[in-house]
Amino acid sequence: MKLRVFVTLKPGVLDPQGEAVRHALGALGFEGVNGVRQGKMIELDLAETDADKAQQQADEMCQKLLANTVIESYRVEMA
Amino acid sequence: MKLRVFVTLKPGVLDPQGEAVRHALGALGFEGVNGVRQGKMIELDLAETDADKAQQQADEMCQKLLANTVIESYRVEMA
Repeated sequence: MKLRVFVTLKPGVLDPQGEAVRHALGALGFEGVNGVRQGKMIELDLAETDADKAQQQADEMCQKLLANTVIESYRVEMA
Repeated sequence: MKLRVFVTLKPGVLDPQGEAVRHALGALGFEGVNGVRQGKMIELDLAETDADKAQQQADEMCQKLLANTVIESYRVEMA
């Protein structure tokens, strides 16, 4: 069962990586870029075949490893 | 106009970051993790209000900066 996990910084948390991208886009001549936020996408291929159980497993992985829940939020979806 | 860009390694390109996550998940006791691939998600907030033009602009940003098209593929979607 394949799942996708999206990890993003919570609103209000500074995103220096996104800011760097924004500056670089400006330097390349792209105008009208109001904001850039960078997050992670993690594609999981799990042996679990039950959709609910796989989602639950992915959720636990996020809590324990994939996301820092103090500053990041995450979302799990079926691929 | 807000857009999301997903940048992933092309199939066949080694993903050491994903492999590291896979090992870490195994070490934490998660079983049945067949594979992990890690990509980037970039949220763009563009001043452009026309959906087609914004998408085109994001596409150009991917070509020039956000993705290394030799080893990465990207996908742009409206947020």
